[in-house]
Amino acid sequence: MPMNLDAVGATSEPAEHSWDSKDAILYALGVGAGGIDALTELEFTTENTIDTPQRVLPTMAVVLGVHTPPLREAGSFNPAMLVHGEQAIELHGEIPVSGTVSTVGTLTGIFDKGKGALVVMESTSTDVATGKPLFTSTMSAFIRGEGGFGGDRGPSGPRNVAPERAPDHEVTYQTRQDQALTYRLSGDRNPLHSDPAFAAMGGFDRPILHGLCTYGFTGRALLRTLCASDPSRFRGMEGRFSSPVLPGEALTVKIWVDGDQAVFQTVGGDGRVVLDGGRCAFTS
Amino acid sequence: MPMNLDAVGATSEPAEHSWDSKDAILYALGVGAGGIDALTELEFTTENTIDTPQRVLPTMAVVLGVHTPPLREAGSFNPAMLVHGEQAIELHGEIPVSGTVSTVGTLTGIFDKGKGALVVMESTSTDVATGKPLFTSTMSAFIRGEGGFGGDRGPSGPRNVAPERAPDHEVTYQTRQDQALTYRLSGDRNPLHSDPAFAAMGGFDRPILHGLCTYGFTGRALLRTLCASDPSRFRGMEGRFSSPVLPGEALTVKIWVDGDQAVFQTVGGDGRVVLDGGRCAFTS
Repeated sequence: MPMNLDAVGATSEPAEHSWDSKDAILYALGVGAGGIDALTELEFTTENTIDTPQRVLPTMAVVLGVHTPPLREAGSFNPAMLVHGEQAIELHGEIPVSGTVSTVGTLTGIFDKGKGALVVMESTSTDVATGKPLFTSTMSAFIRGEGGFGGDRGPSGPRNVAPERAPDHEVTYQTRQDQALTYRLSGDRNPLHSDPAFAAMGGFDRPILHGLCTYGFTGRALLRTLCASDPSRFRGMEGRFSSPVLPGEALTVKIWVDGDQAVFQTVGGDGRVVLDGGRCAFTS
Repeated sequence: MPMNLDAVGATSEPAEHSWDSKDAILYALGVGAGGIDALTELEFTTENTIDTPQRVLPTMAVVLGVHTPPLREAGSFNPAMLVHGEQAIELHGEIPVSGTVSTVGTLTGIFDKGKGALVVMESTSTDVATGKPLFTSTMSAFIRGEGGFGGDRGPSGPRNVAPERAPDHEVTYQTRQDQALTYRLSGDRNPLHSDPAFAAMGGFDRPILHGLCTYGFTGRALLRTLCASDPSRFRGMEGRFSSPVLPGEALTVKIWVDGDQAVFQTVGGDGRVVLDGGRCAFTS
């Protein structure tokens, strides 16, 4: 089942996606906002708190704008062999509490990594109300077993390497045993994240957390540390998923600041890196 | 601002309410299903687990069918003085994963309790798909400061008194600090349950849990203990809210069985009774 290199450059038809205040709250709860002390982050978890207008976590872009139809054109492969590789988002403005975006996705590359194929997709989401781009998303999918077709290896080598010094900031958040049960209501219902029998078929002792849930926890830590919790100052983030996370693990985000950029790593309860090569851009 | 005794017997126009699989999952998560060990109760928290068809917690009736428009006719009073008194539900069949009910509410009594007025409302919800009654709900609202109008005191004295023996069953569930943040997404957005400043105006040190959230936790314990987690065997429950619960408290449901009925009490972390005079009917 070879990859279809001719698909590079394929663009999807625009697709609309709408959300409302409740969707934004459900996303925030899914990535742990309000989790330990329910009295903080109320701007993300409630719509009617006094003197606290509702706002939207910037990482919600990943559930509003990821548009993967071009992936189907990348070749014929077993979807069970696909894992999320990297995820980047760029925010062009603050995400409104409710709205509609129109998203166009483009398959920008298919690379031969030997053990697998790496498919890269970019999408741009336009706010239908204003006609302006609201956010851009770039994701890569690693398809195990589909490499070795003699293609370009693509960009390689470590990116966003942490400096040789202690992190400037460390933020630890506890995920819950049932974290994935709430997160999945934001759209990704893959039973790998909820059904023990399905997870066992995938070789896991129990259901694993969504990579994009780890991404959202990490985004909350970056937003609080680098942007004083002001979403309008959050310009973007990128990172590479390097290890599955189990619901119930504590996640620690290590942050090294350099002007209006920061490099970060997210590590699990045992210290292994789960989101690597991270970079966040913000208005300082 | 007197009570309007002429309102007794007033009936509302039928109102429809629809729900779907996601609503049922969100309700289940709101009342703690899957909370400690995410791998249990998957029939209530997921829709795609192998060999585990989704089902609906019977207590979801309280968010689908409570119909309070007649309450407005009971008199003019300060809504902040209203507290939930008693809540009973009777299930005529198992609630489907998605559907529409048409609900008619009747104001059945206004009683003078001295310190306040007790307004009793009954509603019947009919499954629009089958035309058959699906559940009946009876709730009473206690309106502080509106008593003393010389009316009938109504039924009084303790009901469903626990026998003088140790409970036959005890089930303890931990509520979470952010329990109310999830529960409120099922409909009751009263900021008393989420906003510290609003709660302080009501005289509470911090936001309190929804009474109906405590009711749902209790219903889960009864369903598991008395019905082997089979919602089709759960015929109804009633109880009286006797003390506010703080999110994060452990709730212990004490159950005394007598044939196809059981009397129960729910107590908070310090042993005080929070849901009193409880009775559950089930198919044994």
